[in-house]
Amino acid sequence: MPRIVKTQYEYEGRIREQITVVEEDDLPRWGEEAQLRLVGRPQPRVDGEARVTGAARYTADIDLPGMLFAKVLRSPHARARVRRIDTSKAEALPGVRLVLTADNLPPGILKKGPAPLVKEVRFFGEEVALVVADEEETAYDALRLIDVDYEVLPPVLTWEEALAEGAPRVTEQGNVEGGQPVIKTYGDVERGLAEADVVIERTYTTQVELHNALEPHGTVALWEGDRLTVWESTQSVSGVRKGLAQAYGLPDEDVRVICEYMGGGFGAKFGPHRHTHLAVIAARILGRPVRLVLDRRDEDLATGNRPATVQKLRIGAKRDGTLTAIDLVSYQIQGAGGTGGAVGGPARDQYRCPNVRTVEYGVYTNAGPSTSFRAPGYPEGAFALESALDELAQELGLDPLELRRRNFTDRRRDGKRYAQNSFLEAYEVGAKAFGWSGRPQPPDPAELWRRRERGEPLVVRGVGVAAGMWGSAGWPPAYAWVQLHHDGTATVTSATQDIGTGTKTALAMVAAEELGYRLDDIRMRFGDTVMAPWGTGSGGSGTTSSMAPAVRAAAADARRQLLQLVADYFGVSPEQVELRDGVLRVQGAAEGGGAVERRVAEFFRDIGPINIVGRGGRAPNPADLAAISIAVHFAEVSVDVQTGRVAVERILAVHESGRVINPLTMTAQIEGGVLFGVGFALTEERRLDPRRGWVLNPDLENYKILTVKDAPRIETIVLDRPDDQLNNSAVKGIGEPPVIPPAAAIANAVHNATGLRFRDLPITPEKVLAALAAAGRAAGGRAAEKEGVRPR
Amino acid sequence: MPRIVKTQYEYEGRIREQITVVEEDDLPRWGEEAQLRLVGRPQPRVDGEARVTGAARYTADIDLPGMLFAKVLRSPHARARVRRIDTSKAEALPGVRLVLTADNLPPGILKKGPAPLVKEVRFFGEEVALVVADEEETAYDALRLIDVDYEVLPPVLTWEEALAEGAPRVTEQGNVEGGQPVIKTYGDVERGLAEADVVIERTYTTQVELHNALEPHGTVALWEGDRLTVWESTQSVSGVRKGLAQAYGLPDEDVRVICEYMGGGFGAKFGPHRHTHLAVIAARILGRPVRLVLDRRDEDLATGNRPATVQKLRIGAKRDGTLTAIDLVSYQIQGAGGTGGAVGGPARDQYRCPNVRTVEYGVYTNAGPSTSFRAPGYPEGAFALESALDELAQELGLDPLELRRRNFTDRRRDGKRYAQNSFLEAYEVGAKAFGWSGRPQPPDPAELWRRRERGEPLVVRGVGVAAGMWGSAGWPPAYAWVQLHHDGTATVTSATQDIGTGTKTALAMVAAEELGYRLDDIRMRFGDTVMAPWGTGSGGSGTTSSMAPAVRAAAADARRQLLQLVADYFGVSPEQVELRDGVLRVQGAAEGGGAVERRVAEFFRDIGPINIVGRGGRAPNPADLAAISIAVHFAEVSVDVQTGRVAVERILAVHESGRVINPLTMTAQIEGGVLFGVGFALTEERRLDPRRGWVLNPDLENYKILTVKDAPRIETIVLDRPDDQLNNSAVKGIGEPPVIPPAAAIANAVHNATGLRFRDLPITPEKVLAALAAAGRAAGGRAAEKEGVRPR
Repeated sequence: MPRIVKTQYEYEGRIREQITVVEEDDLPRWGEEAQLRLVGRPQPRVDGEARVTGAARYTADIDLPGMLFAKVLRSPHARARVRRIDTSKAEALPGVRLVLTADNLPPGILKKGPAPLVKEVRFFGEEVALVVADEEETAYDALRLIDVDYEVLPPVLTWEEALAEGAPRVTEQGNVEGGQPVIKTYGDVERGLAEADVVIERTYTTQVELHNALEPHGTVALWEGDRLTVWESTQSVSGVRKGLAQAYGLPDEDVRVICEYMGGGFGAKFGPHRHTHLAVIAARILGRPVRLVLDRRDEDLATGNRPATVQKLRIGAKRDGTLTAIDLVSYQIQGAGGTGGAVGGPARDQYRCPNVRTVEYGVYTNAGPSTSFRAPGYPEGAFALESALDELAQELGLDPLELRRRNFTDRRRDGKRYAQNSFLEAYEVGAKAFGWSGRPQPPDPAELWRRRERGEPLVVRGVGVAAGMWGSAGWPPAYAWVQLHHDGTATVTSATQDIGTGTKTALAMVAAEELGYRLDDIRMRFGDTVMAPWGTGSGGSGTTSSMAPAVRAAAADARRQLLQLVADYFGVSPEQVELRDGVLRVQGAAEGGGAVERRVAEFFRDIGPINIVGRGGRAPNPADLAAISIAVHFAEVSVDVQTGRVAVERILAVHESGRVINPLTMTAQIEGGVLFGVGFALTEERRLDPRRGWVLNPDLENYKILTVKDAPRIETIVLDRPDDQLNNSAVKGIGEPPVIPPAAAIANAVHNATGLRFRDLPITPEKVLAALAAAGRAAGGRAAEKEGVRPR
Repeated sequence: MPRIVKTQYEYEGRIREQITVVEEDDLPRWGEEAQLRLVGRPQPRVDGEARVTGAARYTADIDLPGMLFAKVLRSPHARARVRRIDTSKAEALPGVRLVLTADNLPPGILKKGPAPLVKEVRFFGEEVALVVADEEETAYDALRLIDVDYEVLPPVLTWEEALAEGAPRVTEQGNVEGGQPVIKTYGDVERGLAEADVVIERTYTTQVELHNALEPHGTVALWEGDRLTVWESTQSVSGVRKGLAQAYGLPDEDVRVICEYMGGGFGAKFGPHRHTHLAVIAARILGRPVRLVLDRRDEDLATGNRPATVQKLRIGAKRDGTLTAIDLVSYQIQGAGGTGGAVGGPARDQYRCPNVRTVEYGVYTNAGPSTSFRAPGYPEGAFALESALDELAQELGLDPLELRRRNFTDRRRDGKRYAQNSFLEAYEVGAKAFGWSGRPQPPDPAELWRRRERGEPLVVRGVGVAAGMWGSAGWPPAYAWVQLHHDGTATVTSATQDIGTGTKTALAMVAAEELGYRLDDIRMRFGDTVMAPWGTGSGGSGTTSSMAPAVRAAAADARRQLLQLVADYFGVSPEQVELRDGVLRVQGAAEGGGAVERRVAEFFRDIGPINIVGRGGRAPNPADLAAISIAVHFAEVSVDVQTGRVAVERILAVHESGRVINPLTMTAQIEGGVLFGVGFALTEERRLDPRRGWVLNPDLENYKILTVKDAPRIETIVLDRPDDQLNNSAVKGIGEPPVIPPAAAIANAVHNATGLRFRDLPITPEKVLAALAAAGRAAGGRAAEKEGVRPR
């Protein structure tokens, strides 16, 4: 029986009430009464074969009878006004079915929300027209036949330009998100700085990073009467359904959203997006299904990015390392109306400090809008904070780990206690495994430059450490059903999705564990809103931690029903029935009072079709506790002094995310996240033409994401520490934590290797050589001064 | 919570136990406590628009990417042996992908059951080879390029030939189904006949009737790895799934069967059929989806038929009409291994009679195998029994209705009491509405012949009555789910199907009624085994009567959960919450203790996504009661003495089938059934070449089914009599009852019009003229005898 749970919470200074419907899930803690058979043991992915053999159908694989193909014409200017569009030549091309522009979008189809084609262009790549044709190639050809007469306007490209008096307004709301920065103040920062023995004041900057999921965004839209089916590469089938139902004025149930397989989203695929609406509207007009799958260029121009940041950080500390103040002023450069992340999160919540202030500006510019990107704000914020702590430790002559240890906190800045915080254990375990204690001192970079100047081949090595946290242990609403079948299999259903992370596998393990079935007998049915309860969106590292408690509760409910049935059949009580690995053992059921053993499928054969469905829902986490997943990364780098190239040799990633369901997919998440972090540190950067705002590298040739060939040695240590107070499965999230510390750990290691501090990402060979040269010049200057020689 | 119900029943003289799993469905009777808002009031079909606009997708409309088309080569001989097949020319035809014969069917795909292609041909049209090609036309072309060398053998075509000593064996089991007739004896027939004042001894014969559903049989098969999806025009998606899972050695859940819309089955579409297997096997071999839709000729040759019967009937009665004995020996001519119906059913169960014997032979011949056909055996058996009673009444000088009244019974031959038997009421109501009392006496047919010979235009009229019964009030297992959605709609799901009868509409009404929702807010999801519980097959007039109690129980379960939730939200008890037409009224929830009214969708908006699913299952009918639906038909015919053509002018159909859910679809069922019965009486007949066994009319040009233009005036009187002891919805079946009485009612009316008794169906103009001529000749002979003239 579902029940109402009312939770009070504080948001932006106001007490609010959240109403949640949950199932009963008063289950005993796992592992207390029963030895776990599956959970915690590595399992290959249940859909691995389908994924690697090509049997898995992604959105771009959907092919419907009569389907047409759509492509988007994008603006070649960062800021412009469309004076006139001539689509007549495109429309005349044989095979072209429809050309849409902001001028001829039929009113009345899209009932709510902005039109998906614009006349006022705000970024390079913005959607100006759509072509729908019989073939994809024809659609591309037709794009080139559309004549657009633009009035080109000077773009706003930097945060300084955006904030300058009289700057053109990028959005109707102006150039600062919400009109003002978000300021959070705890204690008195100025007093804290005054009380400090040492104050570090630095500016850190990070670049725009592109999501570049392997699978691009895409939609296939099919109208059948007033019912809409959409295949969408999405992180939230339930969310897209809700969004489409609202946008087109349909009952939810007349919208079906399918995403059976997904090739990554990283925060940029929540939708419905503009391309979704374009496909849906075109399909409505034409009465035929329409497929609109973005290509890599579309993807890199217009589907979101991680905003660049400028972070001005001041940290004060006592001589013993005790933090007295953290003061952060950050600017996130969010493009044309994009969203930012919580850059100030690490500064606020990771360490004990009585005086903290974060001032966060979201700044709009004429560039592709940013959106949430794997741990929004946290890799950026951690790069600044964890670099600064390294600088502080250097200044104080303290071991950087010791500095962190001394500022350990057991609660969030708002006073809420962490249900579990494993930083101290992670520091200790990691330091030991990495061999942290014997780390070298940084060399004099001027000396390195001199040796380079002498043509000496030279590779230097260094190590660094950084920590990261991510507050995530899932949330309601998240529902699941477990249906038992007559053949002894069971299906787990929810309108959630596996975006490529292994969610299906982890949740199949949860279901099998709780049911007492074999893993092979579990079928996962995710990624389809039809006949499935609301499932969580896959963001905030929350899929498994939201869904596992619901799946467990649903499996327990199904198991209860089954055991009751078996008991009725044999005329015993449910307590006399055991179920393990798909085998029922019924005490007292045999003649003479012994036990009967029977496979579930055999039992069902005797009784005919059944109607067992267990339902489970997710209760809210306890209102008085906060959850964090933590990560401590140790990096070893080498720096080639001749080329300036930084190579990450080794990362040791120590993580705690509550109970480990599947060590195999968890490790995969960490390895993937670390590689992400290395790319952020060293290679990834969207480049704009500084005058015109054109994107110079919207492709994978000129935008360098790391591949498995670029991977350092990655070692993982997973602390399997069930966080039992949070939810019935004691699970937290792992998707985002591993991307947070790498950049700072690498920058700290580069400093340790070279004596050079890099505060601007990515750390490219050019920057390394320039810094070495500058150090050499400065030392040369000093030497020359000494020798009475002026530097060149 | 599902529970086990163990039921004992007798079958073929043995006590057996049936284990059924049911949900609790201890619901109060409908209409006692609440005024019904929807049930019993006419509602247009919920899927009517989709059906008439072409939006509804039938199996032949399924079009998958890469799909291939298959056609079947059928034997042109009724009995033959394939010596050799040369498929090389067919295989060489461009576009042909595969040619399958019994010789090259790969072993191992079909794991269980007979091969779907034969070398020993047993009927004209049997499956010999399959062609799969890129286009349907290519497949047809290729069929003509297959050379088959047949050894043609003399076929066994009549029941006398089949039963003759030394006859070739049509099946391995011989030529009589089960090796012997099924004999059921109650009392002592010979004694009963001896005690009779009058004995009628007659032979009645009926012809082979073809199902000719508007939609032909068809399959689209798609393999994805080891998972099989089949679109099948079927009366049982659950049954086809089970059959396919067994045949291909797959878990049930790896087989999905879809039949969203169906265009009629009439008993011939339970499957999997041979064509199903051919499509599935071909798709497996080729790794591509395969569509195999039968054409009208395939349909008429090989998908089943209503077997012809020969029925030798003796009836004894006292002078006052009391029956003393009924003795029936019947032969059903079932073709090559087909199944028969319960021809003896009416003789056994419709009237009170102490001495009854039925001897039923199923005879095999070299013709297309019969299968169940709308009320199998009953239209045939009723034609004999109800004609014979008319003859008996004539003999006794009794009104035929009075004769039936005097032999009313309240129990089945096996002693089980009818929960409700409305024959007496139906006779009375019908006679009054029809104007039965003033019916004329039959004329002398010789006089009619004489007037015809004189060239006098002459149309004579007459009336007749006949009754029919059908034992049907549904059965377990039958399950349903009712899912409530956040937008205020609800979905009813079951792996049952609407075969064109209006089941979706009736069950939507049941769900809306019980939930307290508006009908428009109910979505029906039938015809798909994915995420749906086992639903009943649509046969035996059992879909609504099996499913309605399950749907009602599921809706009640969902309603209970919803009311609890609402009560929790407002802090009241569930008893304070009312729900009608989608509006919640919560007593004591307003400030000051008044009532709050809110639409369900509004309530859900306040509380976020929900997870309410009601589940319902069907309990068995009470073991000590039998159920019958009854039909009494009054017919008025005209007979054109010049042409011999019988025209049915009017049928008054009086029916009782328990509670009426939807009067509109119920009346439609009756009208359709009556038209079926008129075709059986007058026009429909599969004709065989008497020597070679070729089917002479496998098409709708030469096989005459009646259309709406041929329909008589049909009046229906439905006695809405909830049969409350049977199930929680008090529903019985209506699909089959209306086809049972028409033939006898018409034959009786023809007798009343002409004085001629027709004991051989169909009553064609040729037979009428021949009988008139014979009567004329006989009278002429008598006259000539008188006048000393010998007849020509």
